[in-house]
Amino acid sequence: MKTFTLKLITIMLVLLLGACASQVKPQIVADPLPSWNAGTSKNQIMAFVSRISDPDSSDFVPVSKRIATFDNDGTLWAEQPAYFQLFFILDRIKALAPANPEWATTQPYRAVLENDMDALHASGEHGLIKLAMAAHGGVTVTEFATIVEDWMATARHPTTGMAYNSMVYQPMLELLDYLRANEFKVFIVSGGGVEFMRPWTEAVYGIPPDQVVGSSMETRYEIRDGKPVILRLPEIHFIDDKDTKPLAINRFIGQRPILAFGNSDGDFEMLEWTTAGDGPRLGLFVHHTDAEREWAYDRDSSIGGLSRGLDEATEHGWVIVDMARDWSVIYPYQMEK
Amino acid sequence: MKTFTLKLITIMLVLLLGACASQVKPQIVADPLPSWNAGTSKNQIMAFVSRISDPDSSDFVPVSKRIATFDNDGTLWAEQPAYFQLFFILDRIKALAPANPEWATTQPYRAVLENDMDALHASGEHGLIKLAMAAHGGVTVTEFATIVEDWMATARHPTTGMAYNSMVYQPMLELLDYLRANEFKVFIVSGGGVEFMRPWTEAVYGIPPDQVVGSSMETRYEIRDGKPVILRLPEIHFIDDKDTKPLAINRFIGQRPILAFGNSDGDFEMLEWTTAGDGPRLGLFVHHTDAEREWAYDRDSSIGGLSRGLDEATEHGWVIVDMARDWSVIYPYQMEK
Repeated sequence: MKTFTLKLITIMLVLLLGACASQVKPQIVADPLPSWNAGTSKNQIMAFVSRISDPDSSDFVPVSKRIATFDNDGTLWAEQPAYFQLFFILDRIKALAPANPEWATTQPYRAVLENDMDALHASGEHGLIKLAMAAHGGVTVTEFATIVEDWMATARHPTTGMAYNSMVYQPMLELLDYLRANEFKVFIVSGGGVEFMRPWTEAVYGIPPDQVVGSSMETRYEIRDGKPVILRLPEIHFIDDKDTKPLAINRFIGQRPILAFGNSDGDFEMLEWTTAGDGPRLGLFVHHTDAEREWAYDRDSSIGGLSRGLDEATEHGWVIVDMARDWSVIYPYQMEK
Repeated sequence: MKTFTLKLITIMLVLLLGACASQVKPQIVADPLPSWNAGTSKNQIMAFVSRISDPDSSDFVPVSKRIATFDNDGTLWAEQPAYFQLFFILDRIKALAPANPEWATTQPYRAVLENDMDALHASGEHGLIKLAMAAHGGVTVTEFATIVEDWMATARHPTTGMAYNSMVYQPMLELLDYLRANEFKVFIVSGGGVEFMRPWTEAVYGIPPDQVVGSSMETRYEIRDGKPVILRLPEIHFIDDKDTKPLAINRFIGQRPILAFGNSDGDFEMLEWTTAGDGPRLGLFVHHTDAEREWAYDRDSSIGGLSRGLDEATEHGWVIVDMARDWSVIYPYQMEK
């Protein structure tokens, strides 16, 4: 009887301990950045996150100030042979062509419809803006979100044949998760169109619409058939690039990040603003060095050019992430192999 | 010995149970809105929150779509005898006067310095904008945040003698907490200056800077003595009022709220946009009916006028919260009595 009682009590203790243990958060012991090769970049990231989240560290940063900003094109997803939004614009012009028969004989639309890249190039920035306005304006924000979703689900990248939003960087997905696990609030601050990103960033990056900052179109509130709509006008409201990135951070986020990650000189001022603040700060650039697995480009590239950033990174204490050296995997689909 | 062992085991069990219990979140059984009197308004709010958060309800809304937007002036804090930001502007003009000796003889500044309300009124909207630009521009965003913090800590309301940010509504603080407990993400969408609100909204409302949308000034990025600054220019960038509130919601939040709460016709389109969406939606107005404990005003008020909202609330299914009837307490300090 006594033995039985003791056994019963032991079982109860074990069950209770089990119940307690299941409520205690497990310590994360696995490598939070498995696609990052051992080395300086990974060490600097992990050392920074450790010291700002350690309450006993003099560099401790309270959760409410753990703001991180990421560029998108070339930082979270690829951007070659052209910004993915350009392919969207070209596809959208083709989709709109039947309703605009005059485009068959009018540049720059004709160039797109005939896949005449020389004529398209000859139309210059002015031509490109015309195309962008036609592709992005004239619909409600609700309609535009559906257009982007449909395109993202069906369009394929010209050289890899992959869906554009599967060409995101696995090491960056791990970094986003790692930062969130350490209670960072993570934002995108991109030159890309904000309404071109929001329909899919939550599913792909875990970043909700209100944490996506980007370029935008003018809009107008209207009542149509008794129902309110927000109409996208064929007019640029804001370009989020270079020195306007810190302005957008200030306007949308309202506090200075402690970590900023970019890949081009368009991100220079974002890193500069971020790391000029008091206390611990981290600025990082992805350096596209991997011609085999991705692309290799920097100083002379018209897409994602990185020159001043390379020249001044050391002076500012910024980390240059060397894609070929630092990343063991580029895209998520390679993890399944 | 046996008794001692049993006692010891009993103590261990009690300790373990205690440890377990402290890890289990207690069920909230207390009234989450104690400062709301029983009645239709409270019932409609609680019924809405219950059915959108019940996974078995056909009205269930996933957490990522539980967006709520609140006006600030007259909805979260008081706005009489004038918007509190106007008192900030007047105080700031006085503080800047020694550095601007010509103001002693120039309108509309002279009117402020001499507390000449007739002359101030005569200067009209044009005069007010001049004052606002002088009070809000010409400093960096970092400097401006400190100016607002200092003012908020020292300035006192002309009739109540209270700090302005203690004139927030206790029932609304409870509602913000209740919504967050039900996993809403809560935003301010106010005509007030965004940088006038952000320095204190987190401490007072629990709303972080990036969840505050408001009117804003033009800004410029500059390097000063080798350090980047963001300068506030004496020029309006955006006024967040009426039909631009839905545009700001779209631009900053990127999805349509399911709940919107305002108090004036400046919030009409925010409620209209919010409640015109598919699925369950809730729109609410605070109706200032309490001349004794707060103020009573609506159709004819130049501050927080509410006329069309009252006329069309029934048609839209919006809730009119009657301050005198629905709120048992106005300000938090009254809770301590």
